Amino acid sequence: MRLGVFGGLGRLGTKIVDLAKNYNNIDEIYVMDLKQKEQSIKIFKDFILKCDGIIDVSGAQGTKCLLDTFLDYGSQCDPKLLKKFLVIGSTGHTLGVQEMVSNIIGFCSVLYAPNASLSLWNFLRSIVLLAQTLGPDWDVHVHDHHHKFKKDAPSGTALYFIQHLESACPWLKQKIQWSSIRGGIGVILNSVIFSGNCEVIQCTHQVMDTYVFAKGLLDMALWIQNCEAGYYDVQQYLLSLKVNFA
Amino acid sequence: MRLGVFGGLGRLGTKIVDLAKNYNNIDEIYVMDLKQKEQSIKIFKDFILKCDGIIDVSGAQGTKCLLDTFLDYGSQCDPKLLKKFLVIGSTGHTLGVQEMVSNIIGFCSVLYAPNASLSLWNFLRSIVLLAQTLGPDWDVHVHDHHHKFKKDAPSGTALYFIQHLESACPWLKQKIQWSSIRGGIGVILNSVIFSGNCEVIQCTHQVMDTYVFAKGLLDMALWIQNCEAGYYDVQQYLLSLKVNFA
Amino acid sequence: MRLGVFGGLGRLGTKIVDLAKNYNNIDEIYVMDLKQKEQSIKIFKDFILKCDGIIDVSGAQGTKCLLDTFLDYGSQCDPKLLKKFLVIGSTGHTLGVQEMVSNIIGFCSVLYAPNASLSLWNFLRSIVLLAQTLGPDWDVHVHDHHHKFKKDAPSGTALYFIQHLESACPWLKQKIQWSSIRGGIGVILNSVIFSGNCEVIQCTHQVMDTYVFAKGLLDMALWIQNCEAGYYDVQQYLLSLKVNFA
Amino acid sequence: MRLGVFGGLGRLGTKIVDLAKNYNNIDEIYVMDLKQKEQSIKIFKDFILKCDGIIDVSGAQGTKCLLDTFLDYGSQCDPKLLKKFLVIGSTGHTLGVQEMVSNIIGFCSVLYAPNASLSLWNFLRSIVLLAQTLGPDWDVHVHDHHHKFKKDAPSGTALYFIQHLESACPWLKQKIQWSSIRGGIGVILNSVIFSGNCEVIQCTHQVMDTYVFAKGLLDMALWIQNCEAGYYDVQQYLLSLKVNFA
Repeated sequence: MRLGVFGGLGRLGTKIVDLAKNYNNIDEIYVMDLKQKEQSIKIFKDFILKCDGIIDVSGAQGTKCLLDTFLDYGSQCDPKLLKKFLVIGSTGHTLGVQEMVSNIIGFCSVLYAPNASLSLWNFLRSIVLLAQTLGPDWDVHVHDHHHKFKKDAPSGTALYFIQHLESACPWLKQKIQWSSIRGGIGVILNSVIFSGNCEVIQCTHQVMDTYVFAKGLLDMALWIQNCEAGYYDVQQYLLSLKVNFA
Repeated sequence: MRLGVFGGLGRLGTKIVDLAKNYNNIDEIYVMDLKQKEQSIKIFKDFILKCDGIIDVSGAQGTKCLLDTFLDYGSQCDPKLLKKFLVIGSTGHTLGVQEMVSNIIGFCSVLYAPNASLSLWNFLRSIVLLAQTLGPDWDVHVHDHHHKFKKDAPSGTALYFIQHLESACPWLKQKIQWSSIRGGIGVILNSVIFSGNCEVIQCTHQVMDTYVFAKGLLDMALWIQNCEAGYYDVQQYLLSLKVNFA
Repeated sequence: MRLGVFGGLGRLGTKIVDLAKNYNNIDEIYVMDLKQKEQSIKIFKDFILKCDGIIDVSGAQGTKCLLDTFLDYGSQCDPKLLKKFLVIGSTGHTLGVQEMVSNIIGFCSVLYAPNASLSLWNFLRSIVLLAQTLGPDWDVHVHDHHHKFKKDAPSGTALYFIQHLESACPWLKQKIQWSSIRGGIGVILNSVIFSGNCEVIQCTHQVMDTYVFAKGLLDMALWIQNCEAGYYDVQQYLLSLKVNFA
Repeated sequence: MRLGVFGGLGRLGTKIVDLAKNYNNIDEIYVMDLKQKEQSIKIFKDFILKCDGIIDVSGAQGTKCLLDTFLDYGSQCDPKLLKKFLVIGSTGHTLGVQEMVSNIIGFCSVLYAPNASLSLWNFLRSIVLLAQTLGPDWDVHVHDHHHKFKKDAPSGTALYFIQHLESACPWLKQKIQWSSIRGGIGVILNSVIFSGNCEVIQCTHQVMDTYVFAKGLLDMALWIQNCEAGYYDVQQYLLSLKVNFA
């Protein structure tokens, strides 16, 4: 596979590129980053052309640029020639991602992964079950702690949690509180707190090294590459795996 | 219903008696406690005779006494006359409870509730799902924090967690670590910590007031009263409830 | 001592009244509550007149009423006759408490106790030392979790923490973030999170039973009764105790 | 400075070597590791000879080897020629470190750093103050969580905490409980839990990247290099820094 890493000069991007070298089925790695001065629309298109698909970790701003170029490119070419894949790891988008990519899913398989830790999705699945069995008497709060430079709050993951909990538990609609800590460097934490009558349940998922995300995104790229064009949810990815060991 | 509370002078016993007064379907409440000096086997048997069933919160030592008297009584009477119920809320037994009660389940419906918080069982259910989906690469640790006078460690609840996790996830057999804090007064906390590669998940259930247990035990008594003679697990009780609100 | 409990029909007020019965030096207890229909300004004044001093747990609204009546009363009487004391345990005031009570400290000793747990103040003292030794490279976040009916956020205690940390560590001025959970019943928790470079420190103080506050406020009342008229800070109370056992 | 890193092929050792390259005052870096097959006593002595001093992160077993060689070497040479320094970052020793190094402190400045995170020592200082002000009514528990390969429990840091708390608070002698989690990879956490009457305080220090220790040990090496021969405690190092920013 020829893999493009967009945002490849950032902290996470660098780790993806480093780790990708250990993947046998990744033959070529191309890096692009908005920080590069020499970039132009032409170079951007070349980047897309050269790669079978792209992992995007460029941030909300970058994703927009990438999608524009993707669309521009897709509209000019014979769709049959360029079935691409795209794993979007950036968060903080003002629009829904599914909506944002609606114009490119004709010729592109897109996976939106607001969080690339597999265990986090297993965590969410258990949290949803817990919310469903606790029922309407319990208040739910979603909390996240990320580094001081992170601009969006709550985190993309926390938002995803809220949406999922609301859709699985109708009584939680518009009722889930959230809070965020933005401080230091190195804390990557998402928490759900259930408050009942004289009882409280706190569940916390923490990642200590972004290596976890780099590996997760690469594994997702290998999977989405073989999917038909269309929009994919991380839940669909999860279902494709052996998700229950018991 | 005529309800007996064995261990009814202790902290939890007192709360059960207080709360029972608010239950319409509990007509009479009898209290017995090993601390009472005047007790004798005769009085003990009268206690059992007077009640439709008993909630036991007397501690491991007390449960043994109670079961002996129950058995003694059962062996002398016409079983048809005395279908009783028993909710065992004590923990710290050296033998398995199911084994301990095997001689009385001919004429008695017995529910063993090492923890009477309903939400704790929902919590365990989610924890088991999480352990199953995380799989063998994750280490599991069960932790509990209880008051400084509690003698058994780990707590009955923590032990139950370990057994359940081991039976649901064969790879965890003999692999689950545990730790306990015994300190202060008022902390009632059970925690499960999953440790992976650069990731950690911590889930904690805390009860702030033993009112939760008093209410739970009374609700369980109302249910087990109508069950046929036999041994019942708290999971069976849970299944009888509307356990999933979604 | 003749003690008045204003807000004495609320949850905390009831506990204070119950516990006060065990204090040998509290001879008479008077209860007043805004929920009482029959109250009038005359009754309110009688309440103040009858008591040597008052513990206020009526909430921000109530405190204002109480201070108005206090002032009204003080302005009409011979100040020498009525040296009173007042322990303000309510929080959520829109003005600073010291400012609010400025008109009554001529004839009243006032202690503002946004939190009546002694250990919480020892906790704060350690937190301040930690903030001072960690220095400007660490970000500080104050978090609190209280019941779903609590109206003010952050809690009075959290606000006090922020003010104290800012005044002890000039580099934190306007830099301390905060978050609050309002959910369930029974969680009373204040937390300070320090985020550094690949390091994080989390310190949490939790109260499991408002008995702690009832006892704290009664002990404070016994102390402030013997203080000269004026405004007192909980730090001053702390200094009067044997604060360091080592 | 010519710096030796003993245990320099391990995870932490590698990080120290990497980071040392950025230190202007570290001119040469020598690496030695028990995993190297070709090692012999001669090579070991050469290693000591070549370096101005050594950072030891080889583990308890390695430290013993290192001290033997150090002693052997010291006994044969003119002490004036070889004032060396040694920073011991290994833990899990069966003997006290001060005792273990007693034979080499005639010609060597030794700093024992069971934990090289500066903030951890500030944390401990606050914890000690908290224990002192809470007093004898509170129970104290020390907890640590480290990776699944760590052999000693409690951690060297946790042990140090216990000793310090016991010596600062005589009533805690033999009364401090501890627990440890050994699981996963990447959690580096030390916690102190204070349990009172209906109150609990939990303080947790977590390191997310061993970069923190690598930097700490290098900074300590620069300091101990200029100290006179003798045994040094990490507290002495702390005092030499600007420890209080306020």
